[in-house]
Amino acid sequence: MKTILVNSIESMLEIRQQLNGKIGFVPTMGFLHEGHLSLISEANKVSDITIVSIYVNPTQFGINEDLSEYPRDIKHDIELLSKLKVDYVFFPNDKQMYPADYKTWVNVEKITQILCGKSRPTHFRGVTTIVTKLINILDPEFMFMGEKDFQQLTILKQMLQDLNFHTKIVGCPIIRENDGLALSSRNKYISSVGRGKALCLHNSLLLAQKLFDDGIYSTNKIIAQMTDLIDSNGGIIDYIEVFDPDTLEHIPKVASGCRIAIAVVIENTRLIDNIQIK
Amino acid sequence: MKTILVNSIESMLEIRQQLNGKIGFVPTMGFLHEGHLSLISEANKVSDITIVSIYVNPTQFGINEDLSEYPRDIKHDIELLSKLKVDYVFFPNDKQMYPADYKTWVNVEKITQILCGKSRPTHFRGVTTIVTKLINILDPEFMFMGEKDFQQLTILKQMLQDLNFHTKIVGCPIIRENDGLALSSRNKYISSVGRGKALCLHNSLLLAQKLFDDGIYSTNKIIAQMTDLIDSNGGIIDYIEVFDPDTLEHIPKVASGCRIAIAVVIENTRLIDNIQIK
Repeated sequence: MKTILVNSIESMLEIRQQLNGKIGFVPTMGFLHEGHLSLISEANKVSDITIVSIYVNPTQFGINEDLSEYPRDIKHDIELLSKLKVDYVFFPNDKQMYPADYKTWVNVEKITQILCGKSRPTHFRGVTTIVTKLINILDPEFMFMGEKDFQQLTILKQMLQDLNFHTKIVGCPIIRENDGLALSSRNKYISSVGRGKALCLHNSLLLAQKLFDDGIYSTNKIIAQMTDLIDSNGGIIDYIEVFDPDTLEHIPKVASGCRIAIAVVIENTRLIDNIQIK
Repeated sequence: MKTILVNSIESMLEIRQQLNGKIGFVPTMGFLHEGHLSLISEANKVSDITIVSIYVNPTQFGINEDLSEYPRDIKHDIELLSKLKVDYVFFPNDKQMYPADYKTWVNVEKITQILCGKSRPTHFRGVTTIVTKLINILDPEFMFMGEKDFQQLTILKQMLQDLNFHTKIVGCPIIRENDGLALSSRNKYISSVGRGKALCLHNSLLLAQKLFDDGIYSTNKIIAQMTDLIDSNGGIIDYIEVFDPDTLEHIPKVASGCRIAIAVVIENTRLIDNIQIK
Protein backbone atom coordinates (compact mmCIF):
# COMPACT_ATOMS: atom_id res chain seq x y z
CA MET A 1 0.00 0.00 0.00
CA LYS A 2 1.23 3.47 -0.89
CA THR A 3 1.98 5.88 1.97
CA ILE A 4 -0.76 8.51 2.12
CA LEU A 5 0.13 12.07 3.11
CA VAL A 6 -2.37 13.93 5.28
CA ASN A 7 -1.77 17.60 6.02
CA SER A 8 -4.96 18.59 7.83
CA ILE A 9 -6.78 17.49 11.00
CA GLU A 10 -10.06 17.45 9.07
CA SER A 11 -8.79 15.01 6.42
CA MET A 12 -7.16 12.87 9.08
CA LEU A 13 -10.43 12.61 11.02
CA GLU A 14 -12.32 11.64 7.85
CA ILE A 15 -9.76 8.96 7.03
CA ARG A 16 -9.70 7.71 10.62
CA GLN A 17 -13.46 7.13 10.60
CA GLN A 18 -13.04 4.65 7.75
CA LEU A 19 -10.14 2.71 9.30
CA ASN A 20 -10.63 -0.63 10.96
CA GLY A 21 -7.98 -2.66 12.75
CA LYS A 22 -5.33 -1.88 15.30
CA ILE A 23 -3.57 1.42 14.71
CA GLY A 24 0.07 1.85 15.71
CA PHE A 25 1.09 5.48 16.08
CA VAL A 26 4.61 6.91 16.01
CA PRO A 27 4.66 10.61 16.98
CA THR A 28 7.76 12.45 15.73
CA MET A 29 9.07 15.97 15.22
CA GLY A 30 10.54 14.92 11.86
CA PHE A 31 14.20 15.01 10.76
CA LEU A 32 13.95 11.27 11.02
CA HIS A 33 16.83 8.98 11.92
CA GLU A 34 17.31 5.27 12.65
CA GLY A 35 15.78 5.77 16.11
CA HIS A 36 12.47 6.78 14.54
CA LEU A 37 12.71 3.98 11.98
CA SER A 38 13.09 1.43 14.78
CA LEU A 39 9.82 2.73 16.30
CA ILE A 40 8.07 2.29 12.94
CA SER A 41 9.43 -1.22 12.67
CA GLU A 42 8.07 -2.02 16.17
CA ALA A 43 4.71 -0.47 15.21
CA ASN A 44 4.49 -2.65 12.10
CA LYS A 45 4.99 -5.79 14.19
CA VAL A 46 1.80 -5.37 16.24
CA SER A 47 -0.46 -3.01 14.25
CA ASP A 48 -2.65 -3.38 11.19
CA ILE A 49 -2.17 0.26 10.25
CA THR A 50 0.88 2.43 11.00
CA ILE A 51 0.54 6.20 11.25
CA VAL A 52 3.55 8.50 11.69
CA SER A 53 3.00 12.13 12.67
CA ILE A 54 5.55 14.82 11.86
CA TYR A 55 4.96 17.96 13.88
CA VAL A 56 7.50 20.25 15.53
CA ASN A 57 5.32 21.10 18.51
CA PRO A 58 6.03 24.74 19.45
CA THR A 59 4.54 24.46 22.96
CA GLN A 60 7.21 22.05 24.17
CA PHE A 61 9.99 24.54 23.42
CA GLY A 62 10.85 27.15 26.04
CA ILE A 63 11.23 30.85 25.21
CA ASN A 64 15.02 30.61 24.91
CA GLU A 65 15.10 27.21 23.24
CA ASP A 66 15.76 26.11 19.68
CA LEU A 67 12.27 26.10 18.10
CA SER A 68 13.21 28.23 15.08
CA GLU A 69 16.49 26.37 14.49
CA TYR A 70 15.11 22.90 15.16
CA PRO A 71 16.21 20.81 12.14
CA ARG A 72 13.46 20.18 9.58
CA ASP A 73 13.48 18.29 6.29
CA ILE A 74 9.92 17.20 5.58
CA LYS A 75 10.70 16.32 1.95
CA HIS A 76 13.42 13.90 2.96
CA ASP A 77 11.29 12.54 5.82
CA ILE A 78 8.41 11.75 3.45
CA GLU A 79 10.75 10.15 0.91
CA LEU A 80 12.11 7.95 3.70
CA LEU A 81 8.69 6.99 5.06
CA SER A 82 7.33 6.20 1.58
CA LYS A 83 9.89 3.41 1.29
CA LEU A 84 8.71 1.82 4.55
CA LYS A 85 5.44 0.22 5.58
CA VAL A 86 3.88 3.45 6.75
CA ASP A 87 0.21 3.82 5.86
CA TYR A 88 -0.29 7.48 6.74
CA VAL A 89 1.97 10.43 7.43
CA PHE A 90 0.09 13.12 9.35
CA PHE A 91 1.73 16.56 9.31
CA PRO A 92 -0.66 19.28 10.51
CA ASN A 93 0.41 22.91 10.84
CA ASP A 94 0.52 25.22 13.85
CA LYS A 95 -2.63 27.14 12.89
CA GLN A 96 -4.67 23.93 12.95
CA MET A 97 -3.12 22.59 16.13
CA TYR A 98 -3.12 25.83 18.12
CA PRO A 99 -5.70 28.26 16.72
CA ALA A 100 -5.62 31.86 17.93
CA ASP A 101 -8.08 31.30 20.81
CA TYR A 102 -6.36 28.12 22.07
CA LYS A 103 -6.58 27.80 25.89
CA THR A 104 -6.29 24.18 27.10
CA TRP A 105 -3.35 22.36 28.69
CA VAL A 106 -2.81 18.90 30.07
CA ASN A 107 -0.36 18.84 32.93
CA VAL A 108 1.18 16.02 34.94
CA GLU A 109 2.31 17.23 38.34
CA LYS A 110 5.58 16.56 40.20
CA ILE A 111 7.35 14.18 37.78
CA THR A 112 7.41 16.97 35.15
CA GLN A 113 9.34 19.33 37.44
CA ILE A 114 12.41 17.15 38.07
CA LEU A 115 15.25 15.99 35.77
CA CYS A 116 14.71 17.71 32.37
CA GLY A 117 11.78 19.63 33.87
CA LYS A 118 14.12 21.66 36.10
CA SER A 119 15.78 23.43 33.19
CA ARG A 120 12.72 23.11 30.90
CA PRO A 121 9.77 23.98 33.19
CA THR A 122 7.03 24.12 30.49
CA HIS A 123 8.44 21.41 28.21
CA PHE A 124 6.42 18.44 29.42
CA ARG A 125 3.17 20.40 29.57
CA GLY A 126 3.65 20.93 25.82
CA VAL A 127 4.37 17.23 25.30
CA THR A 128 1.37 15.94 27.27
CA THR A 129 -0.93 18.46 25.57
CA ILE A 130 0.14 17.64 22.00
CA VAL A 131 0.03 13.89 22.67
CA THR A 132 -3.52 14.23 24.04
CA LYS A 133 -4.50 16.07 20.86
CA LEU A 134 -2.83 13.56 18.54
CA ILE A 135 -4.35 10.60 20.39
CA ASN A 136 -7.79 12.16 20.18
CA ILE A 137 -7.38 12.69 16.42
CA LEU A 138 -5.87 9.28 15.64
CA ASP A 139 -7.40 7.07 18.36
CA PRO A 140 -4.53 4.56 18.19
CA GLU A 141 -4.30 1.21 19.94
CA PHE A 142 -0.57 1.66 20.52
CA MET A 143 1.82 4.59 20.62
CA PHE A 144 5.56 3.97 20.16
CA MET A 145 8.20 6.17 21.78
CA GLY A 146 11.91 5.83 22.36
CA GLU A 147 13.46 5.26 25.78
CA LYS A 148 15.98 8.02 25.05
CA ASP A 149 13.37 10.45 26.35
CA PHE A 150 12.83 8.25 29.37
CA GLN A 151 11.19 10.88 31.54
CA GLN A 152 8.79 11.71 28.71
CA LEU A 153 7.85 8.04 28.46
CA THR A 154 7.14 7.80 32.20
CA ILE A 155 5.12 11.05 32.20
CA LEU A 156 3.01 9.94 29.23
CA LYS A 157 2.36 6.56 30.86
CA GLN A 158 1.12 8.39 33.94
CA MET A 159 -1.05 10.70 31.85
CA LEU A 160 -2.63 7.90 29.81
CA GLN A 161 -3.45 6.02 33.01
CA ASP A 162 -4.70 9.03 34.97
CA LEU A 163 -6.97 10.30 32.18
CA ASN A 164 -8.24 6.80 31.27
CA PHE A 165 -7.03 6.85 27.68
CA HIS A 166 -7.23 3.38 26.16
CA THR A 167 -4.06 3.88 24.05
CA LYS A 168 -1.15 1.79 25.29
CA ILE A 169 2.35 3.27 25.14
CA VAL A 170 5.24 1.06 24.05
CA GLY A 171 8.74 2.14 25.05
CA CYS A 172 11.46 1.13 22.57
CA PRO A 173 15.23 0.79 23.15
CA ILE A 174 17.64 3.66 22.47
CA ILE A 175 19.30 3.40 19.06
CA ARG A 176 23.00 4.39 19.05
CA GLU A 177 25.74 5.12 16.55
CA ASN A 178 28.46 2.46 16.40
CA ASP A 179 30.52 4.46 18.88
CA GLY A 180 27.65 4.64 21.37
CA LEU A 181 26.23 8.15 20.79
CA ALA A 182 22.45 8.02 21.18
CA LEU A 183 20.70 9.10 17.98
CA SER A 184 19.02 12.50 18.18
CA SER A 185 17.95 15.12 15.66
CA ARG A 186 19.93 17.59 17.78
CA ASN A 187 23.24 15.76 17.06
CA LYS A 188 23.20 17.76 13.81
CA TYR A 189 24.10 20.90 15.80
CA ILE A 190 27.45 19.44 16.92
CA SER A 191 30.82 19.94 15.15
CA SER A 192 33.18 17.03 14.49
CA VAL A 193 35.22 18.10 17.53
CA GLY A 194 32.08 18.21 19.67
CA ARG A 195 31.09 14.83 18.25
CA GLY A 196 34.10 13.29 20.02
CA LYS A 197 33.29 15.06 23.27
CA ALA A 198 29.65 13.94 23.08
CA LEU A 199 30.72 10.33 23.59
CA CYS A 200 31.22 11.21 27.25
CA LEU A 201 27.45 10.86 27.78
CA HIS A 202 27.31 7.19 26.89
CA ASN A 203 30.78 6.50 28.30
CA SER A 204 29.80 7.92 31.69
CA LEU A 205 26.73 5.66 31.72
CA LEU A 206 28.89 2.63 30.83
CA LEU A 207 31.23 3.68 33.65
CA ALA A 208 28.28 3.69 36.07
CA GLN A 209 27.39 0.12 35.06
CA LYS A 210 31.05 -0.92 35.45
CA LEU A 211 31.28 0.63 38.92
CA PHE A 212 28.06 -1.15 39.91
CA ASP A 213 29.48 -4.44 38.56
CA ASP A 214 32.60 -3.79 40.68
CA GLY A 215 30.47 -3.53 43.82
CA ILE A 216 30.14 0.25 44.17
CA TYR A 217 26.49 0.99 44.99
CA SER A 218 26.60 4.50 46.45
CA THR A 219 24.72 6.84 44.09
CA ASN A 220 26.90 9.74 45.24
CA LYS A 221 30.16 7.89 44.54
CA ILE A 222 29.01 6.77 41.11
CA ILE A 223 27.78 10.26 40.19
CA ALA A 224 31.13 11.71 41.35
CA GLN A 225 33.07 9.49 38.94
CA MET A 226 30.62 10.15 36.09
CA THR A 227 31.02 13.87 36.77
CA ASP A 228 34.82 13.61 36.53
CA LEU A 229 34.60 11.81 33.21
CA ILE A 230 32.18 14.33 31.71
CA ASP A 231 34.13 17.32 33.10
CA SER A 232 37.37 16.04 31.62
CA ASN A 233 35.66 15.88 28.19
CA GLY A 234 34.47 19.48 28.48
CA GLY A 235 30.79 18.59 28.89
CA ILE A 236 28.67 20.92 31.04
CA ILE A 237 26.43 18.82 33.25
CA ASP A 238 22.77 19.79 33.61
CA TYR A 239 21.99 16.75 35.75
CA ILE A 240 23.00 13.20 36.54
CA GLU A 241 20.24 11.31 38.34
CA VAL A 242 19.64 7.79 39.59
CA PHE A 243 15.97 6.95 39.98
CA ASP A 244 13.16 4.43 40.08
CA PRO A 245 11.91 3.96 36.48
CA ASP A 246 8.21 4.05 37.42
CA THR A 247 8.12 6.94 39.88
CA LEU A 248 11.32 8.81 38.81
CA GLU A 249 12.11 9.05 42.53
CA HIS A 250 15.78 9.48 43.54
CA ILE A 251 17.54 6.29 44.66
CA PRO A 252 20.44 6.69 47.13
CA LYS A 253 21.86 3.20 46.49
CA VAL A 254 22.14 2.01 42.91
CA ALA A 255 20.35 -1.30 42.32
CA SER A 256 19.60 -3.55 39.40
CA GLY A 257 16.62 -2.20 37.44
CA CYS A 258 17.11 1.43 38.38
CA ARG A 259 17.69 4.04 35.70
CA ILE A 260 20.52 6.56 35.39
CA ALA A 261 19.79 9.59 33.21
CA ILE A 262 22.01 12.49 32.26
CA ALA A 263 21.73 15.81 30.45
CA VAL A 264 24.97 17.39 29.27
CA VAL A 265 25.61 20.49 27.20
CA ILE A 266 28.18 20.03 24.42
CA GLU A 267 28.93 23.13 22.32
CA ASN A 268 25.67 24.83 23.43
CA THR A 269 23.64 21.75 22.51
CA ARG A 270 21.90 19.98 25.34
CA LEU A 271 22.07 16.21 24.86
CA ILE A 272 20.40 13.52 26.98
CA ASP A 273 20.98 9.82 27.47
CA ASN A 274 20.15 7.09 29.98
CA ILE A 275 20.62 3.42 30.79
CA GLN A 276 18.98 0.79 32.91
CA ILE A 277 21.42 -0.69 35.43
CA LYS A 278 21.53 -4.46 35.06
CA MET B 1 -34.31 -2.74 28.15
CA LYS B 2 -33.51 -2.84 31.84
CA THR B 3 -31.18 -0.17 33.25
CA ILE B 4 -27.80 -1.74 33.98
CA LEU B 5 -25.79 -0.53 36.99
CA VAL B 6 -22.01 -0.31 36.56
CA ASN B 7 -19.88 0.52 39.59
CA SER B 8 -16.36 0.09 38.21
CA ILE B 9 -14.28 1.61 35.43
CA GLU B 10 -13.14 -1.86 34.40
CA SER B 11 -16.69 -3.17 33.90
CA MET B 12 -17.70 0.00 32.11
CA LEU B 13 -14.79 -0.33 29.66
CA GLU B 14 -15.70 -3.97 28.97
CA ILE B 15 -19.32 -3.05 28.33
CA ARG B 16 -18.35 -0.07 26.19
CA GLN B 17 -16.27 -2.25 23.88
CA GLN B 18 -19.40 -4.24 22.99
CA LEU B 19 -21.65 -1.22 22.37
CA ASN B 20 -22.49 -0.05 18.87
CA GLY B 21 -24.48 3.02 17.97
CA LYS B 22 -24.50 6.62 19.09
CA ILE B 23 -23.98 7.07 22.82
CA GLY B 24 -25.58 9.99 24.62
CA PHE B 25 -23.91 10.76 27.94
CA VAL B 26 -25.38 12.71 30.85
CA PRO B 27 -22.75 13.40 33.56
CA THR B 28 -24.28 14.13 36.97
CA MET B 29 -23.29 14.39 40.62
CA GLY B 30 -26.50 12.57 41.58
CA PHE B 31 -29.34 13.80 43.82
CA LEU B 32 -31.26 13.99 40.58
CA HIS B 33 -34.02 16.50 39.85
CA GLU B 34 -36.15 17.50 36.88
CA GLY B 35 -33.17 19.36 35.41
CA HIS B 36 -31.21 16.14 35.09
CA LEU B 37 -34.26 14.30 33.77
CA SER B 38 -34.63 16.88 31.00
CA LEU B 39 -31.02 16.14 29.95
CA ILE B 40 -31.81 12.42 29.81
CA SER B 41 -34.87 13.12 27.74
CA GLU B 42 -32.75 15.16 25.28
CA ALA B 43 -30.15 12.38 25.19
CA ASN B 44 -32.81 9.81 24.32
CA LYS B 45 -33.96 11.89 21.36
CA VAL B 46 -30.65 11.68 19.46
CA SER B 47 -28.80 8.66 20.91
CA ASP B 48 -29.11 4.90 20.51
CA ILE B 49 -27.74 4.31 24.00
CA THR B 50 -28.08 6.62 27.01
CA ILE B 51 -25.51 6.51 29.80
CA VAL B 52 -25.88 8.54 33.02
CA SER B 53 -22.92 8.89 35.36
CA ILE B 54 -23.34 9.64 39.04
CA TYR B 55 -20.14 10.83 40.65
CA VAL B 56 -19.62 13.57 43.22
CA ASN B 57 -16.25 14.66 41.87
CA PRO B 58 -14.10 15.73 44.85
CA THR B 59 -11.60 17.71 42.77
CA GLN B 60 -14.14 20.32 41.74
CA PHE B 61 -14.83 21.26 45.36
CA GLY B 62 -12.58 23.81 47.04
CA ILE B 63 -11.04 23.23 50.47
CA ASN B 64 -13.76 25.21 52.25
CA GLU B 65 -16.63 24.02 50.09
CA ASP B 66 -19.46 21.56 50.68
CA LEU B 67 -17.99 18.25 49.46
CA SER B 68 -18.81 16.27 52.60
CA GLU B 69 -22.31 17.78 52.93
CA TYR B 70 -23.14 17.62 49.23
CA PRO B 71 -26.54 15.89 49.06
CA ARG B 72 -26.39 12.23 48.01
CA ASP B 73 -29.15 9.65 47.55
CA ILE B 74 -27.84 7.04 45.15
CA LYS B 75 -30.66 4.58 45.98
CA HIS B 76 -33.33 7.08 45.04
CA ASP B 77 -31.34 8.17 41.97
CA ILE B 78 -31.12 4.61 40.67
CA GLU B 79 -34.82 4.00 41.34
CA LEU B 80 -35.61 7.12 39.35
CA LEU B 81 -33.31 6.24 36.45
CA SER B 82 -34.61 2.66 36.26
CA LYS B 83 -38.03 4.03 35.36
CA LEU B 84 -36.60 6.03 32.44
CA LYS B 85 -34.95 4.99 29.21
CA VAL B 86 -31.46 4.91 30.68
CA ASP B 87 -29.33 2.01 29.47
CA TYR B 88 -26.43 2.31 31.88
CA VAL B 89 -25.81 4.09 35.17
CA PHE B 90 -22.08 4.48 35.80
CA PHE B 91 -21.12 5.26 39.40
CA PRO B 92 -17.40 4.75 40.02
CA ASN B 93 -15.81 5.53 43.38
CA ASP B 94 -13.03 7.96 44.36
CA LYS B 95 -10.36 5.27 44.66
CA GLN B 96 -10.89 4.23 41.05
CA MET B 97 -11.12 7.74 39.69
CA TYR B 98 -8.25 9.24 41.66
CA PRO B 99 -5.85 6.52 42.81
CA ALA B 100 -3.17 7.43 45.36
CA ASP B 101 -0.51 8.34 42.77
CA TYR B 102 -2.88 10.46 40.63
CA LYS B 103 -1.06 13.44 39.04
CA THR B 104 -2.78 14.69 35.85
CA TRP B 105 -4.93 17.77 35.32
CA VAL B 106 -6.65 19.31 32.35
CA ASN B 107 -6.86 23.07 32.59
CA VAL B 108 -8.50 25.70 30.41
CA GLU B 109 -6.86 29.09 30.84
CA LYS B 110 -8.42 32.53 31.31
CA ILE B 111 -12.16 31.69 31.05
CA THR B 112 -11.84 29.51 34.17
CA GLN B 113 -10.58 32.41 36.29
CA ILE B 114 -13.53 34.80 35.84
CA LEU B 115 -17.18 34.65 37.05
CA CYS B 116 -17.48 31.52 39.26
CA GLY B 117 -13.72 30.95 38.88
CA LYS B 118 -12.95 34.05 40.95
CA SER B 119 -14.39 32.61 44.15
CA ARG B 120 -13.74 28.98 43.11
CA PRO B 121 -10.20 29.05 41.63
CA THR B 122 -9.69 25.26 41.27
CA HIS B 123 -13.31 24.34 40.51
CA PHE B 124 -13.17 24.23 36.72
CA ARG B 125 -9.86 22.38 36.66
CA GLY B 126 -11.69 19.62 38.54
CA VAL B 127 -14.57 19.74 36.08
CA THR B 128 -12.43 19.61 32.92
CA THR B 129 -10.32 16.80 34.37
CA ILE B 130 -13.23 14.58 35.39
CA VAL B 131 -15.05 15.18 32.10
CA THR B 132 -11.90 14.19 30.17
CA LYS B 133 -11.74 10.98 32.21
CA LEU B 134 -15.44 10.18 31.76
CA ILE B 135 -15.30 10.88 28.01
CA ASN B 136 -12.27 8.62 27.64
CA ILE B 137 -14.05 5.83 29.49
CA LEU B 138 -17.42 6.18 27.74
CA ASP B 139 -16.40 7.57 24.31
CA PRO B 140 -19.81 9.19 23.76
CA GLU B 141 -21.04 10.85 20.59
CA PHE B 142 -22.91 13.50 22.60
CA MET B 143 -22.67 14.88 26.13
CA PHE B 144 -25.66 16.72 27.61
CA MET B 145 -25.27 19.52 30.15
CA GLY B 146 -27.57 22.18 31.52
CA GLU B 147 -27.23 25.86 30.72
CA LYS B 148 -27.57 26.66 34.43
CA ASP B 149 -23.83 26.11 34.69
CA PHE B 150 -23.31 28.31 31.68
CA GLN B 151 -19.64 29.01 32.28
CA GLN B 152 -18.99 25.29 32.70
CA LEU B 153 -20.68 24.66 29.35
CA THR B 154 -18.51 27.27 27.59
CA ILE B 155 -15.31 25.98 29.23
CA LEU B 156 -16.06 22.38 28.25
CA LYS B 157 -16.84 23.42 24.65
CA GLN B 158 -13.44 25.13 24.54
CA MET B 159 -11.71 22.08 26.01
CA LEU B 160 -13.34 19.60 23.63
CA GLN B 161 -12.36 21.77 20.67
CA ASP B 162 -8.81 22.51 21.86
CA LEU B 163 -7.98 18.89 22.66
CA ASN B 164 -9.66 17.52 19.50
CA PHE B 165 -12.18 15.33 21.29
CA HIS B 166 -14.84 14.10 18.89
CA THR B 167 -17.62 14.24 21.52
CA LYS B 168 -20.13 17.02 20.88
CA ILE B 169 -21.56 18.90 23.85
CA VAL B 170 -25.26 19.77 23.84
CA GLY B 171 -26.39 22.61 26.11
CA CYS B 172 -29.95 22.22 27.43
CA PRO B 173 -32.27 24.92 28.83
CA ILE B 174 -32.47 25.68 32.55
CA ILE B 175 -35.36 23.92 34.27
CA ARG B 176 -37.18 26.02 36.89
CA GLU B 177 -39.74 25.59 39.64
CA ASN B 178 -43.13 27.15 38.89
CA ASP B 179 -42.07 30.31 40.73
CA GLY B 180 -38.90 30.62 38.63
CA LEU B 181 -36.20 29.22 40.96
CA ALA B 182 -33.65 27.30 38.87
CA LEU B 183 -33.46 23.65 39.91
CA SER B 184 -30.27 22.72 41.77
CA SER B 185 -29.28 19.97 44.17
CA ARG B 186 -28.07 22.76 46.46
CA ASN B 187 -31.61 24.17 46.83
CA LYS B 188 -32.01 21.46 49.46
CA TYR B 189 -29.77 23.48 51.82
CA ILE B 190 -32.25 26.40 51.95
CA SER B 191 -34.97 26.91 54.58
CA SER B 192 -38.51 27.84 53.59
CA VAL B 193 -37.72 31.47 54.49
CA GLY B 194 -34.58 31.37 52.33
CA ARG B 195 -36.64 29.76 49.58
CA GLY B 196 -38.61 33.01 49.25
CA LYS B 197 -35.46 35.12 49.23
CA ALA B 198 -33.86 32.87 46.60
CA LEU B 199 -36.43 34.02 44.04
CA CYS B 200 -34.41 37.24 43.82
CA LEU B 201 -31.95 35.48 41.51
CA HIS B 202 -34.46 34.80 38.75
CA ASN B 203 -36.41 37.98 39.45
CA SER B 204 -33.29 40.10 39.01
CA LEU B 205 -32.63 38.42 35.66
CA LEU B 206 -36.23 39.08 34.58
CA LEU B 207 -35.74 42.68 35.67
CA ALA B 208 -32.65 42.91 33.42
CA GLN B 209 -34.67 41.69 30.45
CA LYS B 210 -37.44 44.18 31.27
CA LEU B 211 -34.97 47.08 31.51
CA PHE B 212 -33.48 46.05 28.16
CA ASP B 213 -36.99 45.88 26.64
CA ASP B 214 -37.59 49.41 28.01
CA GLY B 215 -34.51 50.70 26.15
CA ILE B 216 -31.91 50.67 28.93
CA TYR B 217 -28.72 49.17 27.49
CA SER B 218 -26.00 50.29 29.90
CA THR B 219 -24.59 47.22 31.64
CA ASN B 220 -23.72 49.34 34.68
CA LYS B 221 -27.25 50.73 35.00
CA ILE B 222 -28.85 47.30 34.65
CA ILE B 223 -26.45 45.74 37.17
CA ALA B 224 -27.18 48.58 39.61
CA GLN B 225 -30.92 47.85 39.54
CA MET B 226 -30.37 44.10 39.81
CA THR B 227 -28.08 44.74 42.78
CA ASP B 228 -30.80 46.78 44.53
CA LEU B 229 -33.35 44.02 44.02
CA ILE B 230 -31.04 41.29 45.37
CA ASP B 231 -29.85 43.46 48.29
CA SER B 232 -33.41 44.20 49.33
CA ASN B 233 -34.08 40.45 49.47
CA GLY B 234 -31.06 39.85 51.71
CA GLY B 235 -29.01 38.07 49.05
CA ILE B 236 -25.23 38.49 49.17
CA ILE B 237 -23.93 39.05 45.66
CA ASP B 238 -20.83 37.17 44.53
CA TYR B 239 -21.07 38.55 41.00
CA ILE B 240 -23.43 39.91 38.37
CA GLU B 241 -21.87 39.80 34.90
CA VAL B 242 -22.97 40.59 31.36
CA PHE B 243 -20.88 38.76 28.75
CA ASP B 244 -20.53 37.31 25.28
CA PRO B 245 -21.78 33.67 25.44
CA ASP B 246 -18.87 32.26 23.39
CA THR B 247 -15.91 34.11 24.90
CA LEU B 248 -17.37 35.03 28.33
CA GLU B 249 -15.93 38.52 27.72
CA HIS B 250 -17.54 41.45 29.53
CA ILE B 251 -20.02 43.47 27.45
CA PRO B 252 -20.43 47.16 28.42
CA LYS B 253 -23.69 47.59 26.49
CA VAL B 254 -26.35 44.90 26.84
CA ALA B 255 -27.42 43.51 23.45
CA SER B 256 -29.70 40.77 22.21
CA GLY B 257 -27.94 37.40 22.46
CA CYS B 258 -25.66 38.31 25.36
CA ARG B 259 -25.82 36.41 28.62
CA ILE B 260 -26.31 37.73 32.16
CA ALA B 261 -25.11 35.44 34.94
CA ILE B 262 -25.31 35.88 38.70
CA ALA B 263 -24.06 34.14 41.82
CA VAL B 264 -25.79 35.02 45.07
CA VAL B 265 -25.41 33.62 48.56
CA ILE B 266 -28.69 32.88 50.35
CA GLU B 267 -28.37 31.51 53.91
CA ASN B 268 -24.73 30.45 53.33
CA THR B 269 -25.69 28.62 50.13
CA ARG B 270 -24.22 29.96 46.92
CA LEU B 271 -26.79 29.81 44.11
CA ILE B 272 -26.24 30.62 40.43
CA ASP B 273 -28.57 31.49 37.57
CA ASN B 274 -28.39 33.12 34.14
CA ILE B 275 -30.46 34.17 31.16
CA GLN B 276 -29.92 34.99 27.53
CA ILE B 277 -31.11 38.51 26.72
CA LYS B 278 -33.60 38.43 23.84
